[in-house]
Amino acid sequence: MAASDLGLPQVVPSDLPSRVTIWEVGARDGLQNEQTVVPVDVKVEFLARLADAGLTTLEATSFVHPKWVPQLADAADVLAALSPVDGVRYPVLVPNEKGLDRALAAGVRHIAIFGSATETFAKRNLNRSLDEQYAMFEPVVTRATAEGLAVRAYVSMCWGDPWEGPVDPAQVAAVATRLMSMGCTELSLGDTIGTATPGHVQAVLTAVTRSVPISAVAVHFHDTYGQALANTLTALRAGVTTVDSSAGGLGGCPYAESATGNLATEDLVWMLDGLGVRTGVDLARLADTSAWMSTQLGRPSPSRVVRALRG
Amino acid sequence: MAASDLGLPQVVPSDLPSRVTIWEVGARDGLQNEQTVVPVDVKVEFLARLADAGLTTLEATSFVHPKWVPQLADAADVLAALSPVDGVRYPVLVPNEKGLDRALAAGVRHIAIFGSATETFAKRNLNRSLDEQYAMFEPVVTRATAEGLAVRAYVSMCWGDPWEGPVDPAQVAAVATRLMSMGCTELSLGDTIGTATPGHVQAVLTAVTRSVPISAVAVHFHDTYGQALANTLTALRAGVTTVDSSAGGLGGCPYAESATGNLATEDLVWMLDGLGVRTGVDLARLADTSAWMSTQLGRPSPSRVVRALRG
Repeated sequence: MAASDLGLPQVVPSDLPSRVTIWEVGARDGLQNEQTVVPVDVKVEFLARLADAGLTTLEATSFVHPKWVPQLADAADVLAALSPVDGVRYPVLVPNEKGLDRALAAGVRHIAIFGSATETFAKRNLNRSLDEQYAMFEPVVTRATAEGLAVRAYVSMCWGDPWEGPVDPAQVAAVATRLMSMGCTELSLGDTIGTATPGHVQAVLTAVTRSVPISAVAVHFHDTYGQALANTLTALRAGVTTVDSSAGGLGGCPYAESATGNLATEDLVWMLDGLGVRTGVDLARLADTSAWMSTQLGRPSPSRVVRALRG
Repeated sequence: MAASDLGLPQVVPSDLPSRVTIWEVGARDGLQNEQTVVPVDVKVEFLARLADAGLTTLEATSFVHPKWVPQLADAADVLAALSPVDGVRYPVLVPNEKGLDRALAAGVRHIAIFGSATETFAKRNLNRSLDEQYAMFEPVVTRATAEGLAVRAYVSMCWGDPWEGPVDPAQVAAVATRLMSMGCTELSLGDTIGTATPGHVQAVLTAVTRSVPISAVAVHFHDTYGQALANTLTALRAGVTTVDSSAGGLGGCPYAESATGNLATEDLVWMLDGLGVRTGVDLARLADTSAWMSTQLGRPSPSRVVRALRG
């Protein structure tokens, strides 16, 4: 029984959007730390199946240097091999100008850069200060915009930071404002370590939307502490209409069995189906896809819905 | 870093209660389907540790016939061996008059009966119609009340039923009203198969509270589809102040590794701590207790917080 088969009158609660766009990150964020080598044809089939399940935004791969993310060293091959589906966007991650060159050469029309909300994580992840991160991004955004590309900016550590602890909403708002003023078209606010709770989610969204329109704000929650769906519900009530998630809950730490990382797309769709919020996703097809991908990776999906339906 | 260490001003959102009572079911609902035999002294230590972690309502055991729940055949021994902590309640499950006799003989002051919201589950679980379930409960509730005991009524399948599918909120309200009119002091509305989503949660609570005061309504969510915490947040916003959960997420299907059943108390406390909603629970002590219990049972806790903090 799917939540959508409740048989009860489906009236979307008045404080929720009638439609949500799911930004599916499974093929990039989900696979990037994967130790099992996933061949190009499996990645391409994964993307095709995700599109077939009704997802319309598929983050396809990353042009980060292969030294850092060997799993996605085949980015150009994946993009060359996939058959784009009408109405589906295939954004890719781009860290810097060299990455942008590679993305443009591959015909990419939508990129995502990734920055930090905190000084410490900028230093740890990018080996840069916040000012240096902006200096790195500025020419990428300017050139991409001139080429007519849409540019999403991921912002990591928007709630908790492993070194700094809790993050001040005003700090997140300052970083968000700076990235938007650079020309980014959309922000994805990330709870990278999964510590956020609903009140803190509301506080960050309130601070950010003082200068950024809510329509340009997506949320990216990790389920490390089981909070991702409650936080997502809170963000939807605050007016957010784009939610990042990963098919089957792929991602997280590959060293711990069934470690929880990204919010599983299936768990999100189950809730939205039950609420009558449209996503365009066929849950059964999606769960089949994640079950198939689990077989490719040789371990069970961390998604509770996938385990319940296909376990 | 605990959510409570956010360092941000903690203001409970105005639509949430300032304090929540956690009805801890780990020692009963968590253990009842457990295949590993748990000795009396481990159960007693578990209860003592839960009280030490600040939980004030510990469902201790069950006087269901040992043929059905062999794991809890030692109910009287557990109650005789535990040292009650001041301010802590130790309710027990009682199915019928015979169970009530055993509970009274053990000095119990708080019982819980368990009924069904649907005809089919009443038939499957109790081998009775709904009318026959009321006839079984009536003398139990009458006698218990005369003895000065508090009586909670669990209502199973309040949202989805494996045979009937979605459950009409009006049907749940009818069962709830009947149980309260019998003299029960509190209801626990159970999403036994874990299919509920927030809009349906709201609909059932709206229907039930037309005749039952919200202060007498507790919620009992299962995390089978990952929805338990989002549903809990919705119930809190509707005015519910008692939430059932199980330390370490104990319960669910013992045959599937890390199968998800009850909402994990740790995942609930993480959210409530972050929201500034008081529970009286020390999360670190609780996670230690669940990690210890996992060792006793020989498998990892399904709680995401326990895995993140103690994994």
